[in-house]
Amino acid sequence: MANPSLLILAGDGIGPEVMDQVKRIVGWFGDKRDLTFDVSEDLVGGAAYDKHGVPLADETMAKAQEVDAVLLGAVGGPKYDDLDFSLKPERGLLRLRKEMDLFANLRPAQCFDALADFSSLKKDIVSGLDIMIVRELTSGVYFGEPRGIHIEDNMRVGVNTQRYTEAEIERAARAAFDLARKRNNKVCSMEKANVMESGILWRDVVNEVHQADYADVELSHMYADNGAMQLVRAPKQFDVILTDNLFGDILSDCAAMLTGSLGMLPSASLGLPMANGRPKAMYEPVHGSAPDITGQGKANPIACILSFAMALRYSFDEGAEADRLEAAIEKVLADGARTADLMGPEGGTSLSTTEMGDVILAAL
Amino acid sequence: MANPSLLILAGDGIGPEVMDQVKRIVGWFGDKRDLTFDVSEDLVGGAAYDKHGVPLADETMAKAQEVDAVLLGAVGGPKYDDLDFSLKPERGLLRLRKEMDLFANLRPAQCFDALADFSSLKKDIVSGLDIMIVRELTSGVYFGEPRGIHIEDNMRVGVNTQRYTEAEIERAARAAFDLARKRNNKVCSMEKANVMESGILWRDVVNEVHQADYADVELSHMYADNGAMQLVRAPKQFDVILTDNLFGDILSDCAAMLTGSLGMLPSASLGLPMANGRPKAMYEPVHGSAPDITGQGKANPIACILSFAMALRYSFDEGAEADRLEAAIEKVLADGARTADLMGPEGGTSLSTTEMGDVILAAL
Ligand SMILES: CC(C)[C@H](C(=O)O)[C@@H](O)C(=O)O
Ligand SMILES: CC(C)[C@H](C(=O)O)[C@@H](O)C(=O)O
Repeated sequence: MANPSLLILAGDGIGPEVMDQVKRIVGWFGDKRDLTFDVSEDLVGGAAYDKHGVPLADETMAKAQEVDAVLLGAVGGPKYDDLDFSLKPERGLLRLRKEMDLFANLRPAQCFDALADFSSLKKDIVSGLDIMIVRELTSGVYFGEPRGIHIEDNMRVGVNTQRYTEAEIERAARAAFDLARKRNNKVCSMEKANVMESGILWRDVVNEVHQADYADVELSHMYADNGAMQLVRAPKQFDVILTDNLFGDILSDCAAMLTGSLGMLPSASLGLPMANGRPKAMYEPVHGSAPDITGQGKANPIACILSFAMALRYSFDEGAEADRLEAAIEKVLADGARTADLMGPEGGTSLSTTEMGDVILAAL
Repeated sequence: MANPSLLILAGDGIGPEVMDQVKRIVGWFGDKRDLTFDVSEDLVGGAAYDKHGVPLADETMAKAQEVDAVLLGAVGGPKYDDLDFSLKPERGLLRLRKEMDLFANLRPAQCFDALADFSSLKKDIVSGLDIMIVRELTSGVYFGEPRGIHIEDNMRVGVNTQRYTEAEIERAARAAFDLARKRNNKVCSMEKANVMESGILWRDVVNEVHQADYADVELSHMYADNGAMQLVRAPKQFDVILTDNLFGDILSDCAAMLTGSLGMLPSASLGLPMANGRPKAMYEPVHGSAPDITGQGKANPIACILSFAMALRYSFDEGAEADRLEAAIEKVLADGARTADLMGPEGGTSLSTTEMGDVILAAL
C-alpha cells in the first residue's frame, strides 16, 4: 500500500518555524514507528501572494484535494493589510476550507496540568478543563451571498448574509454527537434563536437529529451570549460545544484563552470521506502568524505538533501513536520545558523553537 | 418646569422585584433631593403578552416615545419558550430599541473592589477593571432584511442579514469617541474585517470619523475573535470598546462575566436628542429575568438601581446625584452587604432584595 500523503502549507509569520519542528516529528514516525508519510510542501497566504499574486494558487488547491491530509501553519501579517479583500492571506485559508468542504472544525480547549497557572482564570476553574468545540466551518456569514459594499442613496452599505441549510446544520450536529459519544456524552448547542431565524432553524435541526439518532447523548441549548459568559464563569460544565461558523470563531478563541496557553492548542477541520475512507482533512494550530515574534526562534511549536497528533488520530486511525506524541509533550512540560510564551513571573530560561523540538523528540 | 418623566417597564421574572427597590430610590430622590419624577408604569415582554397577546402594546410603545427615560427590568421566561418568534418577550425589547432608535448601548464592565474575589479570573487581572462597551443597538443582523426560514429544493434554509450603512456606523462611532474623551481617551473598535465586508466598511468609517473629528482620541482595531481572547487575557488594556450589535451582545456578556458580579451591571441605551435636548433613552440591568430565583426575594437589585444612576447621569444631567447613589452602593458593599448571588464560599448571611434596598436607602 502507498504511504499516506501529507501536504504541508507552512504559510506566513511563525508558520514555517513551527512547521520545521513538525517535519522532524513526522520524520521520526517514519524512522522509528514505520509510519512513513509522503510529504510535499507548498505556499498559502501572504507567501503564496508574494510568489503567485494570489493567496492560494489553483495548483495548490488541486494538490490539497488529493492528499490524505493538509497541515497548515498560519496565514497573515501586517505586510498584507492593505491588500484588496479578495487577495488577503485569509482568503487562501477560507478557500481551502470551502473547496475541501471541511464542515467540522474540532477545537479542543484543554488545560495542561503543568500550565494551569498560566491562565488568567483561577486555577480551580480551569485545571483539568477538557472541552471540544465543534464549529461549522463552510457556511454561515463567512460564505453567504449577497455580500459586499455597495452604494444606496449616496451612502456606502456593507452587507453579509448568515445562511444555513438544514443539511449543513445536520452534518455539523452529527459530527458533534459522534464526538460526544467518545467523550462524556454531552453536547451543548449555541446560537441566538431569540433574535435570529437562522438560529431557530439551527436549534430545530439539532433537536431533530438528536431525537432521530442520538437520543442517548445529553443535549442542551444556550444562547451564544450566555455561552460566552458560562465559558468564563464555569467552563468545566461543558463537554462538546456545537456552534456555527461565526459564533464558533469567537467562542473557540474565548475558550482557547481560558487554558492560558494559546501556543498549545491544535485544531482539525474535517470533511466528507474520500474514496479511501479517510475524511478530507486539514490540521492547523489555533494561534495565528504572530508577526511580532517571527524569525526570532521564540515561537512555541507545540500547537502545530499537537495538530499533527490530531492528524494521526482522525485521518490515519493511529490513536495510539497520537497518544504517544501527546504523552511526550505532557512529559516535557511536566519536566519544565518552556518556550518564551510559557515563562511565568518566576523566570527561568526558555527554550527556542528548535530546542523544544529537540526535547520532544528525545521524549519520544 | 414640569417634572421629568419616567416610564417603568418591570417586565418578567425578577424584573418586578428589583424594580420595586428602584421605585423606593426614585422616591427618595424626590423626598430628599428635590428631584421629583413623574413615574408611570406599564408592561413589556411576557407580562405584556399575557395581558395583550403581544410583547409590547402599541400604547406602551407610544408612551415610551414620550417620556424622558424608560427604566426596564427584564424580559423572558420558560413559559414563553414555545411562542412564535414574533410574539416572544424579546421582541418587545427589540421593538423599543428599534422604534426609539436607541443606537448607542453603553455597557460598563466594572469590577467593584469589595467583590473582586467573585470573579473567576485572578484578582490582579480584574481588580480596578473599568471598561465601557459601546454596542450599536438598532441595526446589523438583529434587524437586517431579508430574514426568515424558507424552503429551497425541499430543504429548510434559515437566513439573516448583517447590514450596516455608513451613517449607522458613524453615529455609533461618535458616541464611543465622545465617551472616551470623558474617560481615558482610548477606543478599540472590533469587527471581523478579515472575513466580512460589513466589517471592512465598519473599520473604514470608524477611521474616517476618527481622522475628521477625533484625532485626539487613541484608536485601535481588533478582530472580534481576538477581542474575546484579549478580554479574558488582559481586560485592563481597554478603555472604550466600540462594536456592532451582534459582536456587542457576546463581547459585553463576556466582559460582564469578568467582573464576577452580573447582578451589579447596568446599561444605558441612548438615541437622538428630543425636543427638550435630552436623548431618547432606556436603562436596564444587564442580567436577565432569572426564572430560577423569581419570587423568592433573592434577586440582587443593584444592577437595576445602577441603571437608574446611569439615567441620572445621561438623561438628567445629574452627575453628582448619580455619584451619590453609586457611592452609597459602594459603601454598603464595602460594609459587607450581600445578596445571595454575592455570597462567597466563606458563607455569612445574605440580604433579601428588600433588605438590600433598605441598606442602600440608609446609606443615602
Ligand atoms: C484567520 C481567520 C480567517 C480565521 C477565521 O475567522 O475563521 C481564524 O480566526 C480562525 O478562527 O481560524
Ligand atoms: C434578550 C436579548 C434579545 C438581548 C440581545 O440579544 O440583545 C440580550 O441578550 C441583551 O444583550 O440585551
